[in-house]
This record gives sequence, structure tokens and C-alpha cells, in this order.
Amino acid sequence: MNIYRTYDDLPKIKLPKGQEVSISDSTIRDGAQMPGIVLKAEHKLRIYEFLHQIGIEKLETFAYNERDRNAIKMMFDRGYESPEITGWARAVPSDIDLILDIEDIKETGVLMSVSDAHMLDKMGLPNREAAEEKYLNALQYAVDHGLRTRAHIEDMTRADNSYFVYPLIEKILEIDPDCTIRLCDTIGYGVPFTGVDEPFGIPEMVRYLKEDLKAKNIETHCHDDFGLAVANSIAGYWHGANWSNVTFLGIGERAGNAEMEKLLLFLGRRVEGFDKYNLECLAEFAQFMQKEIGIRIPRNKSVVGSNVFAHESGIHTAGVIKNPFTYEPYPPEIVGGNRVFLIGDSSGIEVLRFKVQDTLKELMGVQLTVEKDDKRLRSIQKDIHKLYDKEKRVSCISDEEIQAYVEKYFLFEPIVEKNMARKVDGIE
Amino acid sequence: MNIYRTYDDLPKIKLPKGQEVSISDSTIRDGAQMPGIVLKAEHKLRIYEFLHQIGIEKLETFAYNERDRNAIKMMFDRGYESPEITGWARAVPSDIDLILDIEDIKETGVLMSVSDAHMLDKMGLPNREAAEEKYLNALQYAVDHGLRTRAHIEDMTRADNSYFVYPLIEKILEIDPDCTIRLCDTIGYGVPFTGVDEPFGIPEMVRYLKEDLKAKNIETHCHDDFGLAVANSIAGYWHGANWSNVTFLGIGERAGNAEMEKLLLFLGRRVEGFDKYNLECLAEFAQFMQKEIGIRIPRNKSVVGSNVFAHESGIHTAGVIKNPFTYEPYPPEIVGGNRVFLIGDSSGIEVLRFKVQDTLKELMGVQLTVEKDDKRLRSIQKDIHKLYDKEKRVSCISDEEIQAYVEKYFLFEPIVEKNMARKVDGIE
Repeated sequence: MNIYRTYDDLPKIKLPKGQEVSISDSTIRDGAQMPGIVLKAEHKLRIYEFLHQIGIEKLETFAYNERDRNAIKMMFDRGYESPEITGWARAVPSDIDLILDIEDIKETGVLMSVSDAHMLDKMGLPNREAAEEKYLNALQYAVDHGLRTRAHIEDMTRADNSYFVYPLIEKILEIDPDCTIRLCDTIGYGVPFTGVDEPFGIPEMVRYLKEDLKAKNIETHCHDDFGLAVANSIAGYWHGANWSNVTFLGIGERAGNAEMEKLLLFLGRRVEGFDKYNLECLAEFAQFMQKEIGIRIPRNKSVVGSNVFAHESGIHTAGVIKNPFTYEPYPPEIVGGNRVFLIGDSSGIEVLRFKVQDTLKELMGVQLTVEKDDKRLRSIQKDIHKLYDKEKRVSCISDEEIQAYVEKYFLFEPIVEKNMARKVDGIE
Repeated sequence: MNIYRTYDDLPKIKLPKGQEVSISDSTIRDGAQMPGIVLKAEHKLRIYEFLHQIGIEKLETFAYNERDRNAIKMMFDRGYESPEITGWARAVPSDIDLILDIEDIKETGVLMSVSDAHMLDKMGLPNREAAEEKYLNALQYAVDHGLRTRAHIEDMTRADNSYFVYPLIEKILEIDPDCTIRLCDTIGYGVPFTGVDEPFGIPEMVRYLKEDLKAKNIETHCHDDFGLAVANSIAGYWHGANWSNVTFLGIGERAGNAEMEKLLLFLGRRVEGFDKYNLECLAEFAQFMQKEIGIRIPRNKSVVGSNVFAHESGIHTAGVIKNPFTYEPYPPEIVGGNRVFLIGDSSGIEVLRFKVQDTLKELMGVQLTVEKDDKRLRSIQKDIHKLYDKEKRVSCISDEEIQAYVEKYFLFEPIVEKNMARKVDGIE
């Protein structure tokens, strides 16, 4: 018999391959490419500081213009050991030179688009061979100049892996056996389940890279067009990848990237041996992104949305009041969040009782117990239901309003009308 | 050799079990429980109409108060065959009576919380046996009164499945062999991968329900606390579930539920034989939810976010201009969306060229070709870079501004300053 009534009771998950895994960030690179946002150097620096606080191992940045280079300098000036600041380049020597110009950068990604649409249509190359030559030359150039490398295998989930991509990666690993192979699920076509045919199945691709091509470093980079970015990132780890490249809040092109915060909570709370990340600043980080960068955070966004620890409906509030484990995924303080009880149209008597007791305590300085069938409490409930029944009210009842009700029914008018035995018409 | 340059070139995925699958909606039930929102009867009706237009097979609703019942009446008055309107009840006869009072409703869900935290802490029951008795009595009551049933196995991903839940489900299926077993991943603890130990592994749970317990109807209901709701819903289908219960935009308690729109796109665009859903109203549906219900839709939300078909960065715009397949997951018109090109700080010369040509066409009525190294074009680019380099500008360049630049450099001042050979400092 298994009994789970606290977080500690729940079993931890083990990554099947047991490898050490790390997170690399692309918030100031792919994230900054998100249409409609502009990251100033000071924003990038602040993001870098948050990533440092969390313990993210690596980040990547452009180095194309003065603003990019200024931000890089400010980050290095902090003197942090992590995240490591790495570069990003197209597969041309002139791009790699821009990275080489920054002495402190020791690693760069090199973009290698591998789908036919990207090579032939986007890049206008005559054939696959021309692309391969271009990519390998650029990689060789980076290696020759002393850089560690990542190969960003762009649009791999819509590419001809057997006939083009895997042979290309073999050649990449001949040039640099330590090269990190970044499996880019550029348009979000990856599928996290086993047994999916090429070119979609992330598990099969990672397995092939690891076991057949003997890649030492495998990284996923997943987009969320079909809602599977986080699952695909975890699927990568599951089958042997040791890196996952993500952005905070999932900002990025189109539907964005896998969300760092979701991955962090999954690893930190669910997977055995993952206490290396500090999650306490996540709520503050999210607030920064909202206020300073203008990223709208929906209320129902996992980890950082304002609703994540807010409870309103009857059943949920009744549960959380008795044991927060009933309807919370983890304690709010883990991510620097707060639990909130709201009174709205789906609330029941239990949360109202809780709020009324709280208000009485605040007003009178003593802890009183109000029974569930207290007539004054039921009167407040009836008044609130009336508001919603008229369908004019669409917001929650504020703490100030609750206080006014408490004053009305508990302090000034202790005797209330009869006929209170109205059936509770919300759920409890 | 496989060549993928259009959507039609890409292979379709097959669900391994080959079963027919359907979608049930909980937007007006679990969705309406989202703290901070209130759905009026007219909202529920409009949502019902959208679901009808899409072809969603079923929805569930509360019937606790007059507003609920009024909305139900309005929905039935439409006379639609789908979605079927079904009920929701706690495991008490009085709740089921409320459903029975509405003659047209033929099916109800019955809440059966199965984790110890829910049974013992939330509900205050003395033991598991008391819970089982309560649940089976309520189910029997519903069946005796002629309702089709669903058993909502709440918090099954944190419950003692082997010793309590599976035996309970066996008894449920003895009472009603057609009962839909709803696997509720209430706190989002489910994991979509095979080989995950109890109580988390969705594949193992679905397999056991189907193969060992011979459940005919299996439905997932997944929450997104760890970012896996959509993957878990698809994992359900993958391993034999025939229903998935979701909400539009994923609204719901805390981090919300699996997003209907993501599931629809995955099925409709990626899985063989799934053209039964009409996706064209999704953008309009999302706009309704934003404007009328007040749900904030982040720009980078899959399917319905304003960025999903917006392109700004150099590489992406250059690709999409040549072949939209390069950086779009599906054509915008599929979901009633529009492609937008934006000029921002990460834009390159190609999108600017495209915009300038477009503007010239609008101003002069003829299609002109501007070369990439046209000096006037480069002057505009230089002016724009200056704006961002100063780090004051944080928004995109509007179409009106582009027009002003075009007028300045192409119409009124065709001869521009020298020294234009400045290196492109964005990526292309």
C-alpha cells in the first residue's frame, strides 16, 4: 500500500540513462528574436544575473552589433563562473570572426540548416552538397581558431535524416568529436514518444546520435508550435541528451521555445538528484520580464502565472485550506510565489468561512471559529450569489468588500433575516 | 531520399492503436473555475457555438444554480447535435438529482477523488472504504436513473492505483461497463513516457485500464503544472484512450488544462485521418475569449498568439518570404490567422526590402524590384539601426514609419549620402 499525503511521500523519477544533464539558455538570443520585443543591454545583463542566480550552466548570444557586444562586456564584467557565455554564428567565417573578436568567449554555435526547404529555398543553395561543404568549412574554421563548437542542426525534424543529416553529423564529429549536436526542432514538429517514424521522433533521433554516431554531447532546442516543446526537451534527456536549450517564459519566434521554468520545476521537484537549481527567484524573474520587457504573462501560465497558487472554486479552496498538497503542485515559496484565496462565482462556503475568520481576526485581534452553517456567514454568501446571479459582476470579491460584509453581518447587525436555509448552490 | 519542401510532403503520424478518438470540452466547467474569471450565460452559449463550429463532440457543465441552468437551456435551444451537453456531479445523489432535473441531459460525470490527500484530508472521510462506498452508491444511483456515466478519477496520478484505484474501477465497470473512465491528472503529475513507475506514468495507466480492466471508454483530463498537459493528452490517445477532456486556451485551475487548440492542430495537421475538425474559427474564438472574457493571450501562445505568424528576425523573414513552409508550422488561414512581417531590431535586409517594395507598390501602383544593395534601402536600414542602437526605441517600426522612410529616400531624395558600405550588422 502506498500513501501520498505530502510532497515527500511521492516517489522521485529517475532519468533512465542516469546521465548528468544541464540547461543552456537562449533567452537573450532566440528569445530576443521574438517579434515585438527589444532587449536592451541592461535587460540582457539582468537576465544573465537571474540565470546566474538559478544556476543555469550556459547561455548563447549574438555578437553582431555594438549593442550585442556591449551586453557581452557587461556580462563578463560581472565575473560569474556560470552561465558560460557562448557565441552564435551562421556558417560563414566572417560570423565566426565576430565571435573570435571577443577573447573571453570560448565556444560558439554554428547554424547548419538541414531541411531541404531551408537549404534550397531559404538559403538558395544549389544542392545539399553545397550546404554540407559550407557547414563543414565553417566548423573547421571555428575549430582551427580554438573554439569549442556546437552544431545547430536546424529544422532536423523536417529533414532527411537518414540520407543527409546523419552522414553530415558523422563528418562534424570527425572534425570535432566533442562538438555538441543541437537537435533543433525548429518548427515544433518533434514528437516525444518512441516508435515515431522519421523525421519526427525525438527519442529515435537522440538514440541514434548517441548510440550509432557516438555523439558525446547532445542538446535539444524545441519550439512549441504543437504544444510539445517541454515534453520534447524532457524526452531528449530521457533518451540520452545531456543538454536542453530553452528560454525563460518560452519567449522566442512564433509560439516560442520550451519554457525554462517548467523544465526547472520538473527536474527540481520530480527527478532524483536535481537540487542543483535555485528556483526561488523565478517569480521575481517573471515579474521583471513582464514589467521591463513587456512580456504578458497569462494568469494560467505554469510556475509563474498569478493563478498558479490562487484558489477560488469551492472544491479546490476547501481542499487547500485543509492540506495545500491536495491542489498545489509544490509549495509556493519554492518559486518565490504566494498562495491566494479568492472569492468568486465558483467559490463555496469553506473559502468564505476561511476569509471571514481571517477578516474577523484582523478586525478584532482574536481567532474566532465561524461554523459552516452560521447564519451570518450564509447571509454573506447569499449577498455574493446575488451579485453574480444578476450577471453584472464579473470580477472577484475584494478583501475590502469581504470586510464590509463582515462588518455588516458580524459586527453591526448580528441578527439577520430568517429563511436562510437556502440550498448551497455552488459546489463545496 | 526524402524531400520535404511543402506541408504535403511531410508524412502523417498514425496513432499506434488505430482507434477513433474524440475531444470533450471543459471550458465552461473546469475553465470557468479559473480564479478571476466569471462566465455569464451568454458567454457559455457563445463558447458552445464555437465548439459546435469546430466539431467538438461533447461538453460538460455544472447545473448548480439558476445561471448554470439558464445557460444549459440556451444551449439546448440551439438544437445542435454536437457537442453533446453532459452534466457534472459530486458523488452524492442530490447532485445527480440536479442533473436528472434537466431532461435533455443523458450523461453525467461523477467526481471520485482517489488520492489519500483528497479522500482523507479534503473530504474528511475516515478511510478509503468509505470513499469507495460513496462513489459506487452515487454511480449506481445515476445508472438506476438512466444516465450514462463518466467516473472522474480525480488525482489519479498521486493515488495508490494498484491497491485502491484499479480495484475501485473494476467495481465501477461492474456497475456500468460503458462508463467512461476519466483519468484525471489533477495536479499535472502525469508523465507521458513509457516505463514510468506508478502513480505517474500515463501510458502504463491507460494500458492497464484498457487491457487489464477492459475499459471501453478511457478519457484523459490533464493539468499543466509541469508543462506536460498536451503531451499527456496525446500520450493517452497514443496508448488507447478514446477521449481527451480539454479547455480552450487551457483555461482552468492554476496552470490550467491541456489546450484544446494545440490538440486540434496536432490531430488535424499531423495525424492520419483527422480532418473531422474545423479549425478556421480558432483565431476568432481566441479573440472572443480575450475581449469578452478577459483572458490574456500571450503573443507567443501556440496557435492563437499574435506572434504565431509574425516574423521579424532576419533569418526567419528571409526564409518565409521565399517559402512560408521554412518557418511556419502550417498556413495561417488554417486557423483563421494572418501572416505579418515586422521590422524590429533583429530584422535583416530581406524583410526590409520586402516591406519597401510593398510600400512602393502601394504608393505608386506598380511592382518594383529593389535590390538588396540598393543604397536607398541601405540608408533606411541605417536609420533604423540608429534608432535601436541608441536603446531608446523598444517597439517595432510601424508601416507608417516605413512609408515615411520610403518617401524620404525613394521619392523625394533619390540621391543619398555616400559611405553606405557599412557592414550589415544584423543577421540576414
